[in-house]
Amino acid sequence: MSLINANYLNLPGSYLFSEIARRVREFSAANPERKLIRLGIGDVTSPLPPSVIKALHKAVDEQALNEGFRGYGPEQGYDFLRAAIVRDAYQGLDIEADEVFVSDGAKCDIGNFQELFAGSCKVAITDPVYPVYADSNVMAGRAGPMGDDGRFTGLIYLPCTADNNFVPDLPGERPDMIYLCYPNNPTGSVLNKEQLKRWVDYAGENDSVLFFDAAYESFIAEDGIPRSVYEIDGAKEVAVEFRSYSKSAGFTGLRCGFAVVPKSVRGKAPRKGGGMNAVPLHQLWMRRQTTKYNGCPYIVQRAAEAVHSPEGGAECAATIAGYMRNAGRIRQGFVDLGLTVSGGINAPYVWVRLPEGMDSWGFFDSLLRGAGIVGTPGAGFGPSGEGYFRLTGFGNAADTAEAMERLKTFQM
Amino acid sequence: MSLINANYLNLPGSYLFSEIARRVREFSAANPERKLIRLGIGDVTSPLPPSVIKALHKAVDEQALNEGFRGYGPEQGYDFLRAAIVRDAYQGLDIEADEVFVSDGAKCDIGNFQELFAGSCKVAITDPVYPVYADSNVMAGRAGPMGDDGRFTGLIYLPCTADNNFVPDLPGERPDMIYLCYPNNPTGSVLNKEQLKRWVDYAGENDSVLFFDAAYESFIAEDGIPRSVYEIDGAKEVAVEFRSYSKSAGFTGLRCGFAVVPKSVRGKAPRKGGGMNAVPLHQLWMRRQTTKYNGCPYIVQRAAEAVHSPEGGAECAATIAGYMRNAGRIRQGFVDLGLTVSGGINAPYVWVRLPEGMDSWGFFDSLLRGAGIVGTPGAGFGPSGEGYFRLTGFGNAADTAEAMERLKTFQM
Repeated sequence: MSLINANYLNLPGSYLFSEIARRVREFSAANPERKLIRLGIGDVTSPLPPSVIKALHKAVDEQALNEGFRGYGPEQGYDFLRAAIVRDAYQGLDIEADEVFVSDGAKCDIGNFQELFAGSCKVAITDPVYPVYADSNVMAGRAGPMGDDGRFTGLIYLPCTADNNFVPDLPGERPDMIYLCYPNNPTGSVLNKEQLKRWVDYAGENDSVLFFDAAYESFIAEDGIPRSVYEIDGAKEVAVEFRSYSKSAGFTGLRCGFAVVPKSVRGKAPRKGGGMNAVPLHQLWMRRQTTKYNGCPYIVQRAAEAVHSPEGGAECAATIAGYMRNAGRIRQGFVDLGLTVSGGINAPYVWVRLPEGMDSWGFFDSLLRGAGIVGTPGAGFGPSGEGYFRLTGFGNAADTAEAMERLKTFQM
Repeated sequence: MSLINANYLNLPGSYLFSEIARRVREFSAANPERKLIRLGIGDVTSPLPPSVIKALHKAVDEQALNEGFRGYGPEQGYDFLRAAIVRDAYQGLDIEADEVFVSDGAKCDIGNFQELFAGSCKVAITDPVYPVYADSNVMAGRAGPMGDDGRFTGLIYLPCTADNNFVPDLPGERPDMIYLCYPNNPTGSVLNKEQLKRWVDYAGENDSVLFFDAAYESFIAEDGIPRSVYEIDGAKEVAVEFRSYSKSAGFTGLRCGFAVVPKSVRGKAPRKGGGMNAVPLHQLWMRRQTTKYNGCPYIVQRAAEAVHSPEGGAECAATIAGYMRNAGRIRQGFVDLGLTVSGGINAPYVWVRLPEGMDSWGFFDSLLRGAGIVGTPGAGFGPSGEGYFRLTGFGNAADTAEAMERLKTFQM
């Protein structure tokens, strides 16, 4: 047999959502009459907007004709979509269309982007966190096995709890790569411009690279919250940004996202004869994508283009408003239960602080049994998520309302 | 700045098809009246088959409705498609549906699959070769910079030339990972069962893993040529297989493929306290795909399912027959020119041996100027491709016929 990449074996076997599915399955088997309401997983429920459906049908028809057929497209995305993205999402932010790399989703981009860095690079993640940031770096050997404290060895953890209002402190030790997600999954928190600027400045002063995951930017409702890291001076030198159509336009099953890689963000490599050369990450990501990726489907890119049209934008905004009404209802429901709640204002995620001493899997079981509501235990997102519980506004309005009715009589 | 993965810098800067595009652009600028016929790049030209178009429209309509909408799908593909693949393509070969991993194409799968192995693994590739096999391993550090002989240091090259009838000899040194592509790109050659069995046996005896790229299996016309490596006894213990809908069904712009990873193919990892544990690659690939990939779009998987229906299969077969008529015409054209030709019988690629002493870029320029035909220089596929030239049957019939008319008066 050939030697495998043994780093994979440092990952825990069971994945958060599989464990949830298992417990739900068991409960349903024992209580078949009970209607469950799922407010746990971050998948959308509203169908694709009419403009997107129209664009898909049109593009499919093109693919049926000799004169309209498109085969291999550019791996980095069609110009029509890259131009629409820059025009609609980066106006005034000095991002060029050829700094946008279209892909089949932010999960892939975020999972793959770490490949551009040396195995010895030090990685910082917030805690709790979207598991892909940590897991992809464990696979690459930048972190070792998980210790008894629930932390992978070698990673720098930045706790985000009620104590710091879910705003991470700057790391005590210099990281090469820093993952930030705002609006945040799972805490639903945001950074204002000043708070984000601290991170951009820190990255500039410490020669770190920021991986800025902006998958939830379209849920921002309040003023003064940056939608893009490039609203911050200096970010074009230190940050790459990841975005997704999954939550903003319902593309979780259609698959499209993009990475913004400014040509001015650079890493370093040893020079022959000593010293270091600066290497643009843009050049490396282009090489990665042209070698190991073959582009997002043409019809899907036409669908994404429609999201940037005035009609598409309005349709998406209406769907998001519905999800945010759900989130607001969930917030209120848990506040009425006497709990402290964050998120749900600029993010679809509601992050509930559990009563002192109650663990998040215990609350999961109790909420499932007592109210037939499925949520997500905070511990699944990292050790600092223990004592918290995640709910999402992505359900449909009627189910969410019913869940909150049930909550009124729920005994913890 | 953070340290980059310096292995990337071992890759040559300019990619084969970019250099071709540059030369074509220059020629066209100087000769705007000349109609060029492109028989070089391996992209298809026929539109998507009617069954596929119908399935796409239907699936798009489902995505427009509350009750039909599908969000995140299983990363490894929907059961309906995995079942259709096993039923249609692996009947009698003892492959289970859950050993099939659906993806957005064979290029991605092949590029990513090497991640499962240790950086110290030794890699063997045929020469000439599809560049992704070598490049993805250079990026991972399993090969060093390219030497003056055009070979990346550290890789085992298996020359395939007219001298061995394009059938590689077994390696003199044991590789951990062996890439084979049959029907072959670029040589158009195939292996019969006996020849493929030698490789399966070799892998079994030497504890190597076979990466079998079967992207062109649907072009096989002759009896006795295996379409899948699993037609060979013992392959289920040593081989993973990659397939694609790109060439078989015109999906180059729609993006779908799959990897078959039998649970019985295993690698090894050091055991705590000494010795080795066997680890199924199936488990590792599942972890890789669930962590860094988010599934092929639902609508595209429905399109792929249609390829496996009787109507879809017949439509694809008709298109392939057309491409193979083109390939046969190209073969004959170059034979009439007095050259030795292989391929074009069980593969869409025609591999022309150039007259003694003529280099492949020289022939490229000469064919472009003299006949307005764009082909691909063999040297672009590796050092053993020098002295050869690749043409493809993927053009449309009229253009291919016209190209062959022009060839009649072409002076080398």
